[in-house]
Amino acid sequence: MLTREDCLQRDAIDRLAPLRLEFALDELDARGLIYLDGNSLGALPRRTLPRICEVVQGEWGRGLIGSWNTAGWITLAARVGDKIGRLVGADTGELMVADSTSINIYKVLGAGVTIVGHDSPARRRILSERLNFPSDLYIAETFAREHGFELTLVDAENLIAALDDRIAVLMLTHVNYRTGYMHDMQTLTRAAHDAGAMTVWDLSHSAGAVPVALKAHDADFAVGCGYKYLNGGPGAPAFVWAHPRHTARMDRERWRQPLAGWLGHAAPFDFVEDYRPAPGIARFTCGTPPIISLAALECGVDLLAEAEKYGGIDAIRQKSIELSNVFIELVETRCAKELALVSPREPSTRGSQVCFAHPTGGYRIVQALIARGVIGDFRAPDILRFGFTPLYTRFVDVWDAVDRLAGVLATGEWRDARFAGRAAVT
Amino acid sequence: MLTREDCLQRDAIDRLAPLRLEFALDELDARGLIYLDGNSLGALPRRTLPRICEVVQGEWGRGLIGSWNTAGWITLAARVGDKIGRLVGADTGELMVADSTSINIYKVLGAGVTIVGHDSPARRRILSERLNFPSDLYIAETFAREHGFELTLVDAENLIAALDDRIAVLMLTHVNYRTGYMHDMQTLTRAAHDAGAMTVWDLSHSAGAVPVALKAHDADFAVGCGYKYLNGGPGAPAFVWAHPRHTARMDRERWRQPLAGWLGHAAPFDFVEDYRPAPGIARFTCGTPPIISLAALECGVDLLAEAEKYGGIDAIRQKSIELSNVFIELVETRCAKELALVSPREPSTRGSQVCFAHPTGGYRIVQALIARGVIGDFRAPDILRFGFTPLYTRFVDVWDAVDRLAGVLATGEWRDARFAGRAAVT
Repeated sequence: MLTREDCLQRDAIDRLAPLRLEFALDELDARGLIYLDGNSLGALPRRTLPRICEVVQGEWGRGLIGSWNTAGWITLAARVGDKIGRLVGADTGELMVADSTSINIYKVLGAGVTIVGHDSPARRRILSERLNFPSDLYIAETFAREHGFELTLVDAENLIAALDDRIAVLMLTHVNYRTGYMHDMQTLTRAAHDAGAMTVWDLSHSAGAVPVALKAHDADFAVGCGYKYLNGGPGAPAFVWAHPRHTARMDRERWRQPLAGWLGHAAPFDFVEDYRPAPGIARFTCGTPPIISLAALECGVDLLAEAEKYGGIDAIRQKSIELSNVFIELVETRCAKELALVSPREPSTRGSQVCFAHPTGGYRIVQALIARGVIGDFRAPDILRFGFTPLYTRFVDVWDAVDRLAGVLATGEWRDARFAGRAAVT
Repeated sequence: MLTREDCLQRDAIDRLAPLRLEFALDELDARGLIYLDGNSLGALPRRTLPRICEVVQGEWGRGLIGSWNTAGWITLAARVGDKIGRLVGADTGELMVADSTSINIYKVLGAGVTIVGHDSPARRRILSERLNFPSDLYIAETFAREHGFELTLVDAENLIAALDDRIAVLMLTHVNYRTGYMHDMQTLTRAAHDAGAMTVWDLSHSAGAVPVALKAHDADFAVGCGYKYLNGGPGAPAFVWAHPRHTARMDRERWRQPLAGWLGHAAPFDFVEDYRPAPGIARFTCGTPPIISLAALECGVDLLAEAEKYGGIDAIRQKSIELSNVFIELVETRCAKELALVSPREPSTRGSQVCFAHPTGGYRIVQALIARGVIGDFRAPDILRFGFTPLYTRFVDVWDAVDRLAGVLATGEWRDARFAGRAAVT
């Protein structure tokens, strides 16, 4: 079995190690806390606080309204979008930061069914996976009702078989939020296209964690979240991408997305009565973006750009797989009686998180583990979820986390009454 | 004619004067800048920067994911919403902060036509004012197209006559963004109800500037912006309100608004497949809110709550009218040849801004005035717009601003080539 010393040695030769110094983890380290929840909310980059102070005090406080031009606020969503684009295989000018992931799902479903509806009006179904992130399903089901469509849900293994001539859009989250299962984007996109359907990919658990090749894999639309592996801060704005073949066609046909607000207008400051969509991805913008939160997102995204020096997303992916493999090996060696692996064992079908199930104590074990300074989270009904962010998670963190988990289980301390109940958010 | 000395004396007895000290205006004052654009982006409250540092460094950096519970992030949108509610005549629990104004317009149109559609399916029109803020019109027109409705636009004076049995929703901005004209909410709401229609009010230029009595005037839905008179920072999140008779009915009938994301679910952390709307206004939430920007908004809103000590919104309104009257009187005395009043002269139909038109030089005059340190803005085709924020605008600022405006016009310096062209944002 891997020893703690082995883990320390792997950290010593980790080429991504310099990036950990870019995060404000001093106090967590001093308190011996291990953060394995970056898949829910990424840690704070050191550069974010000084940058936010500059935005608030300098750009807003002193620059006031002029900062829309002089500080580049008006182009910030596109600039940060371009930086995210490089992480997910999109070209410059194709991806925008805007609104929330849920709102962006609504926009791309609207665009998708407009295009499909023009070419194949008989296709009236949106296909997704039953265990997709609920917000995506809520948005899609409500969208479907309002637009005379139907949301069809199947298990992941039946997706390709369900792609028939009634499907307009296949909407999937690339990496499943609960299990960490990662779909094969290329194969599913090809299958959807062969069946005459569009694809909508939610990259919330992918961007910044695993390589994504939107353009190379010929995806149609994508959305994603800024506050997980992009380390953009709580509730950071989300992003939206459309393949340029679709935006070019929307340009020609003057098609809109359904949330056609003023910043998605071709000339918002002309204040004209008629809506004329901005060309390209810019039409997917709606209202004025929250600049302070958007500036924080840029700091997180910039760190991932700097990771290029150390091997970039491929090095991140490699370390993520190694961290996850070490975690699985140690848990299965030390906690095999109590915990069963839920995530795929095969790394190529797994994102950057690992989940185990416990038949009765999932919630309490996570709480007891938090009391021992290891922050993971619980997902109903029975899942203990642990995320690995290669920019700041060390091999020794993984070893120590499993050591404490084994302690929580061996002592049975998780059965203590203080760990009962359900928190509002986990 | 009012002298500068008169203005200084009015400032000396201004009961709202202590609130100006709450804004970070030192450098502007030192440079002799006069900011009359708080109707576009409010100034920075002093308390915002320390609060944002605490949110970023303490709550995010140290509290990490746990801050959703321990720092109250999960209830922040409702908490700030309640504080805004008190400024616009809504009761506790009726108003939420969420998304952008444009997105919220889409939500309340969806809710409104669901209710009207149930009771009077033949009503298929949304009525608005031709010169409403364009984003509201773009959203409504696109919504109408997609849902088999029609957007009908008339001039303000013809609104009541246009309320016939085909109108489902009357959608208006309470205070017009260009002219500052303020609609009579009570009369128009009553007229809409008499005609069997719902009302949607955009309070972007009202909240924090003029008294609004949503409940007392029996409005149906309202939305508004956080970055103008609420001083919430660039692109601050917006708000949404629905009369409790509508949310109660939506509860009973299990009706949704169209952007039904996970945080508007009755139990978002159960992660169940089926959408079940949260009771009351909470169903108008969609995705995860941008916490840093939301925390900044709270600081601005808290300042307005503190204004209660000095007479509250009535004192703010009184000073706003006086500032505006002084501005009109001075401009009409000193610049009568060149500028024509566009805003209503009668204070009861005017918000907290004053606009003048110039036949050819509007844009250049605003630029020349900015070069002299007075920040107002230009709105196409010919409007010079000046906003008065009684929390920090002084009578002497108004006098000095007009003095410089008169200088710009008397010297003809605005004709200089360096003031030509059109900026991206003004």
